[in-house]
Amino acid sequence: MKKSSKDSVVTAAILLFNSKGYSGTSIRDIADAAKVNTATIAYYFGNKEGLLEYCFTYFFEQYINKMEASFATIEKGAAICLKRVVADLLHYQWENIQLASFVYREMSIDSQMVREIMATYSLKEKYYLQKIFERGFEWNEFRPHSIPYLIIQLKGLLMMPFMNTHYMREVLYVFPNEKFFEQKYLKDLYQWIDKTLCSDIQIKKEAIIK
Amino acid sequence: MKKSSKDSVVTAAILLFNSKGYSGTSIRDIADAAKVNTATIAYYFGNKEGLLEYCFTYFFEQYINKMEASFATIEKGAAICLKRVVADLLHYQWENIQLASFVYREMSIDSQMVREIMATYSLKEKYYLQKIFERGFEWNEFRPHSIPYLIIQLKGLLMMPFMNTHYMREVLYVFPNEKFFEQKYLKDLYQWIDKTLCSDIQIKKEAIIK
Repeated sequence: MKKSSKDSVVTAAILLFNSKGYSGTSIRDIADAAKVNTATIAYYFGNKEGLLEYCFTYFFEQYINKMEASFATIEKGAAICLKRVVADLLHYQWENIQLASFVYREMSIDSQMVREIMATYSLKEKYYLQKIFERGFEWNEFRPHSIPYLIIQLKGLLMMPFMNTHYMREVLYVFPNEKFFEQKYLKDLYQWIDKTLCSDIQIKKEAIIK
Repeated sequence: MKKSSKDSVVTAAILLFNSKGYSGTSIRDIADAAKVNTATIAYYFGNKEGLLEYCFTYFFEQYINKMEASFATIEKGAAICLKRVVADLLHYQWENIQLASFVYREMSIDSQMVREIMATYSLKEKYYLQKIFERGFEWNEFRPHSIPYLIIQLKGLLMMPFMNTHYMREVLYVFPNEKFFEQKYLKDLYQWIDKTLCSDIQIKKEAIIK
């Protein structure tokens, strides 16, 4: 019973933080939506900031676990590994669309908590991506390029649909919560890897064969 | 004197909305930062929502004007035109980094105002991008692909650095306010156009020549 009231607080918080924004949501709103009293929220999370920190940690712990698991395939090749990472992260965001959406939005505001989350999780993510790109250059799979600029592009492509869900629905009529979207967009991400990272290398190989 | 107090309110609002978020900023905070009294803000903008609407309109009016001006080069070819659009929009965001950053963040929250802004400006932007892609397919410059999915990728690449300025600085050590960033990142955006949109077409042309 206790566990389920904690879960319902988290579910309500994600829903409200996503639709009204973190600052635009009060503990009272969350308590009402979760059908608990505010003391229950205080008991589990302290205050609203504690609840936000719980959401951040909950999201990024799993995110980094996915990243680590996909990274384990690096010996199969950098392109194969990167495709695995991209597929797993896209699927994870797709499964947690409301959480991803509000977490990414709140990460754009500068605060002590955001800086701590970045110092822990974003640096780990960067470490793995960097390793994959370095291996790709070393094994002549990827065309040499600035790693931070590759991360900007990859993260931009990965986060865009989940940072702009209303735009996707209202303007483009694309529904990022649908399975069809995940499947179709994954092909586009693979294409970015094939065309932007791998393309000239293949041409060189063909030239050698000739 | 009146004009300058209006301007200083807008400047202070952009700064605070960006650093603390729209909901996390009060009219009192803005009045203090702009060194005006709250009645001055009420006189020019009504309330905080009016100030937000002013910022949205101010940002997107100029954004769409840039888009329209760049679109005028369409007769030179779809790839040339798209590169022009991308260069002008990147430069516009770069020039208005704080405004772009908070406008994009607030656009991710569903509200009546956001829906109106999308129905006006985002649909216009989509119209121009759609025209460019259609011409590109028609003139055999671009490989055929779903237009909404191309817009997702292009907008993702274009907005990422400005939606995540702290991440860029703290994690990647890339400073999106520097001229160097704009120049370097523009090359990456051109590359996306060349590799993702145009690449297979060129191979076909080469095959025809052979």
